[in-house]
Formats: sequence, structure tokens, C-alpha cells
Amino acid sequence: MQTLPLLITLGEPAGIGADCVLKAHQAEPALFANTVIVAPTSWLTLRGQEMAIDTAVQSIPSLDAFVPHNGQLICWNPLENDTHQAIAGKPSPLTAKAVIACIQAAAEACIQGKAASLTTGPIEKAVLRNQGFSFPGHTEFLAHLADDCDIVMMLASDALRVALLTTHMAISDVSSSLSIENTLQCIQITQHDLQQHFGIQKPRLGLCGLNPHAGEQGHFGREEIDILTPAAQQAQQLGIDVSLPQPADTLFSGPMRNQFDAMICCYHDQGLIPLKTLSFGDAVNVTLGLPFIRTSVDHGTAIDRAGTGKVSYSSLKAAINMARLMSQASNK
Amino acid sequence: MQTLPLLITLGEPAGIGADCVLKAHQAEPALFANTVIVAPTSWLTLRGQEMAIDTAVQSIPSLDAFVPHNGQLICWNPLENDTHQAIAGKPSPLTAKAVIACIQAAAEACIQGKAASLTTGPIEKAVLRNQGFSFPGHTEFLAHLADDCDIVMMLASDALRVALLTTHMAISDVSSSLSIENTLQCIQITQHDLQQHFGIQKPRLGLCGLNPHAGEQGHFGREEIDILTPAAQQAQQLGIDVSLPQPADTLFSGPMRNQFDAMICCYHDQGLIPLKTLSFGDAVNVTLGLPFIRTSVDHGTAIDRAGTGKVSYSSLKAAINMARLMSQASNK
Repeated sequence: MQTLPLLITLGEPAGIGADCVLKAHQAEPALFANTVIVAPTSWLTLRGQEMAIDTAVQSIPSLDAFVPHNGQLICWNPLENDTHQAIAGKPSPLTAKAVIACIQAAAEACIQGKAASLTTGPIEKAVLRNQGFSFPGHTEFLAHLADDCDIVMMLASDALRVALLTTHMAISDVSSSLSIENTLQCIQITQHDLQQHFGIQKPRLGLCGLNPHAGEQGHFGREEIDILTPAAQQAQQLGIDVSLPQPADTLFSGPMRNQFDAMICCYHDQGLIPLKTLSFGDAVNVTLGLPFIRTSVDHGTAIDRAGTGKVSYSSLKAAINMARLMSQASNK
Repeated sequence: MQTLPLLITLGEPAGIGADCVLKAHQAEPALFANTVIVAPTSWLTLRGQEMAIDTAVQSIPSLDAFVPHNGQLICWNPLENDTHQAIAGKPSPLTAKAVIACIQAAAEACIQGKAASLTTGPIEKAVLRNQGFSFPGHTEFLAHLADDCDIVMMLASDALRVALLTTHMAISDVSSSLSIENTLQCIQITQHDLQQHFGIQKPRLGLCGLNPHAGEQGHFGREEIDILTPAAQQAQQLGIDVSLPQPADTLFSGPMRNQFDAMICCYHDQGLIPLKTLSFGDAVNVTLGLPFIRTSVDHGTAIDRAGTGKVSYSSLKAAINMARLMSQASNK
């Protein structure tokens, strides 16, 4: 079977995206086996000079020129030219279009089957928005590129996988954002992608109740009765192994959580709290529902630390490793 | 210094309260050193016969007759008579008044300084309500007995302590239940009781934001700006070491959570999820704000298992041990 490249985008070039790649490659070159960085070559070479990291960056004109390798830094610049230099710590509107173009080219290569996966570095949304980027975030942009498909945000570590019914919204808005349709869709996407990309033949899904004690039969909150239970029952009728809504605090306790391959969570912190409680920097943001594998670092651009060398690449490492594992599982 | 007894109430006598005591005493008699069970003697002796556990139960007429001991089962029956037998699995209105009277007598003994602490077994609220018990639960009844004092529900394990701003309510009601006054009061009670009963001279408190990412400067939810931050600042001005509201998912991650002696949580699952994720059945419910030490088992009456011997006493053990530790710290 043909080996496809694992793509990496750097995100905002004034931030630490390039720094993490350079530090990671210096310490663990094998992490970059079969990867291609989708970026102007100068974003890596100039930052390398600034950080006094002597790294040979090779460039390829297109992904057709990709050759499997053991861990070189290979750059593919999908832009017509590479004139706008990135300056550490200084986001510029001049590089914003290049940031967007790199992400778009990488995503399209994945969609066209020219790449195995996409791992994304952190973007600076405010800078991009000023250049006409109209999406709430990275993930929504990728979904748009993939025919506006429905997606699910999943966070995964060695200890736990959590899929989110709602993401970045106020707690007081969560209840009104839940519906039977969205819950069923999230369950279906999670089930599908665990089979497709994680090599789990019969995923076991745990569904969290929204309210304490899962509402205690409607005593505090009816979302379990009106929304979550009907959605779970419909999913069960489709042959999906999903639980009825369970008290979230017991669902994440040791004996319970090991009975499930992923938890369906009603809100951001319901999934992120136990994940970060258990994990030690190895949690990876995975976007489910896309027609390709996408993982992401879980940190921001840290503009003020760019070029200083004071960065940890653990999240990038975890995201690349997860993309590699998922692409291997997908090939089975 | 005089050794005071650690009181234990059995809760609903048709449930597993007595079962847990009998199994625990059979396996680990030293756990019961200096304890007094506040109950009709027959609730233990008859259940012991049923479970084929040969346990000698001694009774004392009043706490004045308490003598320090190494782990006998000592009963003090505060009722005038002991005529209403408890039947495993069959809650009865005939024993409801005795359940309430035992809790009340135990609490009053603590308030009067005749006992070191109170550890409570699980009650069956529906049975008690039919006999005129008008409190939402155990804790509110104890607060009422203590001049209607303000209390805070805390859950504590070896790994984590969480104090709750709100408890058993729907997630959609949490926001409107938060106020600067309640938040400040919770912080003050937690700080006071950690000093008073846990031997922590300068407690470090972590305050959880309500919304994901603590609202990201008001982008999703303003409770951090309007309620939690002002409350934290007022507490800081009173000399309390409490953080400003932090993103709850990062606050419970390993490096962060070890910087605090307790977390102030906005809602039930925000505290209970990380607690149960980390603990292995050793979490104890502690009521802060009472004029005495109160710990509680974290399970229900499990009426259907009463008398069968199929119960775990780990929660009772943790609750007794916590009461003992707290009373020792209080004596310092």
C-alpha cells in the first residue's frame, strides 16, 4: 500500500507553531517520519536561526514529490511565492492569507486522498478575521472545506476519549442547545469514526446525563428524559452500543470509565475536566465527522514566547502520534 | 484532654446502614475505637442474627457513661423505648420517628460538646417525609438543629477536596443561583473549616469558573466577571488565599490541583466528576459550616440489599476515618 504523508500546518507564524516543530525535530526526529510541513520554508528556517537550531529543511514542489522518509523536515509550500516573512511575536496581516491558504491546501490534499492526515498548529483568530476569515475557529473552517459536513469535537488521551455535544458556550446556554437530533448525530459520528479511524469494531459509548445524578428521574432537570434518553434509544435501535444517560460523576470513576471506548458529554467541561484530571499533557483534540483524519495541538499561539525556545512540544508530539495511529488503524 | 466519642447514626434501619457497621466491625474492629452507635440496640443485634454475624453489642444509657475503647460496638439509644423493630428491606413509618430522633440526639450531643463528631448513614427521605420530616435532606436538617446555620457541602478524598456553591439542581438553574454573597460565604466557610477541622493554617483555595475557559473574558458567559471575580476579590481583601476564577478543566489537572487545599466549584458535577475520577471509593461527604464535625457515607440505603451481606463498607470506613482525623486536627 502506498505510504501517504502526514501533513502538519504551523498555524500563526508569529506564534510558537514553528518553534514546537523545530524543538520536537531536534529532540525526536523520528516523530517526523513521513510528515510534510505545509508552509513556506522560510517560516521554519528563519525561526530556526533565531532559536539557534541548525535544522536542514528540504522543500518539495508538490505532494506528488513526496517520498517516504525516516524523519526529515520536509516543507511543501502551496503558495505561489514566499515573500512575506514571519516575525516571531508579531502577527501580521501580510501572513494571514498564507496561514489560511496552507490550511486549505492541506485539507484539500487530505480530501483528495493525497495525504493520510492533518495535524494543525494554533492559529490567531483575530488576525485571520481581519483578513476576511469568517469562521468561529479552525474546525469550522475545515468542516466548510469538506462540504460543510457535521463534525464532533473529541478529546482523546491514553486514558479517556470524550466527544462533546456542545463546545464553547456559556453553561446557561447548554440546555437549550441540546436536541434529540444533535445528540443522535453526535453518537452516530462518534460511533462511525471510532470504527473508521480507531480500529474499534463495536464501540461502546457512555452517554453522560446533563444534570447531577442524571436529573434523578426529572427531579432536577428534564433533559435526560426529554432529549438524551430518546436519542440514546434511537441510536440503540440503529444497533449502536450506547448507554442511557448516566450520572456523569460515576461514569468517569475508574470501574465505570473502563467499560466504554468513548463518553458522549453534554458540555465542554463535563468532558474536559475528567480528561485533564487523568491525562498528563497527552490529550489530543480530534475532529470527528470530517472525510479525513484531523488532530490538533491543545494550546494557543503563545505569541509572547515565540522564538524564545521556552516551549513544550508535548502536545504537538501527542497530536502527530495520534494522527499516525489513526491513519494506521484506518488502513486496516 | 478528655476523649470524646465519635458518633455514628445508622440512618434508615431497613437499609444497609447497620449491615455496613456489622461487616466493617467484623473485619476491622479497630475502626470503631471510641465510636458510639446512636441507635436502638436491636437494630444492630437483630440484623447481626440475620447476617449470621456474631457481634456482641454493648449498650450505654447515656453518653455520660462513655468510656474510651479500642473498637467495641457500643450503642446508645436516645429513645425512651426500643419497641419498633427494624425489618431489613421493609422501611416502616413506625421506625421513622426513631431515625429522626437518633440523628437529632447525636447532633445535639455534638453541639453540646459531648461528642467529637457525627458520621451519618443513609436515610430514606420519602419514608421520613411522610412522618413530617420537612427538610430536603440530612444536611439541611442538621443545619436547622444548629440554629439554621449556613453550610457548605464538601467532598474530600486523599487526592482532592471540593466545596460546592450549588448542589442538587438542574444545570440550567445554576447560573441564576450564584451570587457574590453566596460565593463569598462559601469561600469563607471553607477557609474557616479547613483551618478549624483540617489543621491547615493558611488554606489555598482554587475558584472554578462556571463556563468553559472561565468564559474567556465574557465571550461565553459573564458569571466570572459579574459574580465570581468580585467575590474572590472581596475574599482576598479579607486575607483569604483564593484564586480568581480559573478554567475548571485546567484547575483539576495534576500540576494545578496540587497547588490548592480545596477547590470552590460552581455546581455538583464540576466538583464530583474530578473527585470520583481520581478517588477509588474513598471520597467522603463533609458538611462545613456546622458547629461540629459531620461526615457522611456517599451511598444510599440500598434497601434491596439489606440483610444480604452483599454490601461494601468502604464508604463508611472512609467517613469514620475522616471524622477521626478531623477531630484530631481540631484538638491541635
